[in-house]
Amino acid sequence: MPAAKTAPALLFYADTHSSRDLLYFGRFECHDPFIAFAHRGKKTAVLNALEYGRGLKESAFDEILALEPLVAELRKLHPDAPRLAAAEVIALLAAKKQIPAFTVPEDFPSGLLERLRARGLTITVAEGLVLPEREIKTAREAAAIRAGNKVAVAGFLAAEALLQRAQISGRKLLLDGALLTSERVRLVIEIAGLEAGGLALDTIVAGGDQACDPHCRGTGPLRPHELIIIDIFPRHTATGYHGDMTRTYLKGRANDAQIALVEAVATAQKAARRVLRAGVISSAVHQECVKVFTARGYETKATPTGSVGFFHGTGHGLGLAIHEAPRVSAPVNEPLKLGAVVTIEPGLYYPGLGGCRIEDVAWLTETGHKLLSSHPYTWQIA
Amino acid sequence: MPAAKTAPALLFYADTHSSRDLLYFGRFECHDPFIAFAHRGKKTAVLNALEYGRGLKESAFDEILALEPLVAELRKLHPDAPRLAAAEVIALLAAKKQIPAFTVPEDFPSGLLERLRARGLTITVAEGLVLPEREIKTAREAAAIRAGNKVAVAGFLAAEALLQRAQISGRKLLLDGALLTSERVRLVIEIAGLEAGGLALDTIVAGGDQACDPHCRGTGPLRPHELIIIDIFPRHTATGYHGDMTRTYLKGRANDAQIALVEAVATAQKAARRVLRAGVISSAVHQECVKVFTARGYETKATPTGSVGFFHGTGHGLGLAIHEAPRVSAPVNEPLKLGAVVTIEPGLYYPGLGGCRIEDVAWLTETGHKLLSSHPYTWQIA
Repeated sequence: MPAAKTAPALLFYADTHSSRDLLYFGRFECHDPFIAFAHRGKKTAVLNALEYGRGLKESAFDEILALEPLVAELRKLHPDAPRLAAAEVIALLAAKKQIPAFTVPEDFPSGLLERLRARGLTITVAEGLVLPEREIKTAREAAAIRAGNKVAVAGFLAAEALLQRAQISGRKLLLDGALLTSERVRLVIEIAGLEAGGLALDTIVAGGDQACDPHCRGTGPLRPHELIIIDIFPRHTATGYHGDMTRTYLKGRANDAQIALVEAVATAQKAARRVLRAGVISSAVHQECVKVFTARGYETKATPTGSVGFFHGTGHGLGLAIHEAPRVSAPVNEPLKLGAVVTIEPGLYYPGLGGCRIEDVAWLTETGHKLLSSHPYTWQIA
Repeated sequence: MPAAKTAPALLFYADTHSSRDLLYFGRFECHDPFIAFAHRGKKTAVLNALEYGRGLKESAFDEILALEPLVAELRKLHPDAPRLAAAEVIALLAAKKQIPAFTVPEDFPSGLLERLRARGLTITVAEGLVLPEREIKTAREAAAIRAGNKVAVAGFLAAEALLQRAQISGRKLLLDGALLTSERVRLVIEIAGLEAGGLALDTIVAGGDQACDPHCRGTGPLRPHELIIIDIFPRHTATGYHGDMTRTYLKGRANDAQIALVEAVATAQKAARRVLRAGVISSAVHQECVKVFTARGYETKATPTGSVGFFHGTGHGLGLAIHEAPRVSAPVNEPLKLGAVVTIEPGLYYPGLGGCRIEDVAWLTETGHKLLSSHPYTWQIA
């Protein structure tokens, strides 16, 4: 009876960079894969000697087992086994703790799944989220995401200062006698981020046509009179939570088409925010952006060299991962949940004209949302 | 006949942070999971509109397919399916390209494995490395790792300058009127790293007993007359390859036990390097370090709060990942390969006395190895 009533034990084998679920589960960062599981309400981790002492001090696990004595015990049982690794340790613990079955997340490694089943263990691969509570952010988590966005703001301020100081010389931007490049702007953003307590990995500083590939990081000289997208998504070091904000700039003089493009994106973002609250259907938020763009004649279509228009989702969940549940996009016909944190980041991209994206972060309430990001939208820098 | 002769197509579904194999395979960084496979000598990726244009320009794939038209095609075939995702797209492509079977790496996601098999596809999970050639570094890769180590050296120089300038005041280290902490030293290392073209993620600056947990990053005030371990493992931004170096410092006056500890670790590192060449058995290199420590009476053992002594491997492979094949450690009784790049990083850790680790990076040749890291071992800073 008890065995049938007990939910299968949730089992992980991952490093906490690849599995943010495991990071959330144990509140413990570890660069190398380790075994962890929940059984009868208790969280257990198996750590090697390198991590054991730190795990005792830093983690939220209820029990930490040392790996090496378990391997030594297995070695006595199987003196001739060529290798004794995660599968054997898990099987040993399942026997000791009388765990009848495990559930593993979708991203559990296939090789280990097969070895566990070959040992006769009952393993079910979960469909969907194994820790759905991760989608609902507490006030403390929202504060951590806000802190992540403050790191991003430090980056925007540093970038704006460079663009302010830059001199226009024909088709070039010069600063202190040298070309102003994506790399130089990224460096000051990254340094400002570190000084503000976060790490801005892979910041996007992309001008002109480069910005029309939304995940292009940007390289080489930035040009005057061209739109420049800056997308900063730092990890707040003290908490591990991310910020994610985008602003679009132009150094010099904007033409009418550029002004109209930025205006359209800003209007789309406001339209999405107007309907954004707990309970609204995800795709309906996205459609608010689509409607603004369609009404103004901005077409979205695929071309042989890539898509143009508005060809990504309006937003995504944000937390310990940069992209996590929920998605705010066309194919998702489910209501957004109370307490979810999402980005709202419509964009338009047309090679020749350039790209524009504006991104903020919202924490959903019953009646609307609280913004967890705050920075002006001023974009033209003379 | 041809089907039997063709090796099963190698299939990936991962982001390139979690799967360095996929990064190596396609030479393309992507933060979100995507489908990629090799079939009849051609490498194919399936990218969504966000990544498609960038994939065409930046990646080493022979063929890039746009995801959205494939999903639209599936939608016509299955108008009522609740979701059409990676499994359905892979099944469609397997049919179109007449791919009879796939091999997937050990870390392939279990959920997708099960969905593919439920669709009748033949999937074999590889045992061991799917791209064993990754272990053998070309001259270009060795140069990239050397560049990664130059980023680390920029960090050591910055940290040493801080320690030089710091003032000893009783049990405190003061710099410009404020306490010198692990966080302050880490910040200057990270900034110096960025300026040198790399990103030093999770740098360790750990003093006193903190350093006895080898993966503790270090927090709070650094103390005079205590050993301080600094371990920097930056990613060189232009190439994606990592450096990984460790030096141990002491600001103030070292006592005899500290001097003996550092001397023992330095001697162990030299002993390991003396035998390090292609063809040597991995565990034999490790045993050179063990012998030095044992001869000097440094005991390794587990305690209730963690292990003491030399309780980690001597080294690990280094490349696109910080930890990759091969391992240089006690359980590995295989020869190291010509062209492998490994760290050599013995260490000793005794709470109360402190920790010491010294780490360099070697590229294995027939007769010995070439060091890919270079920085003095001076450790006492008055």
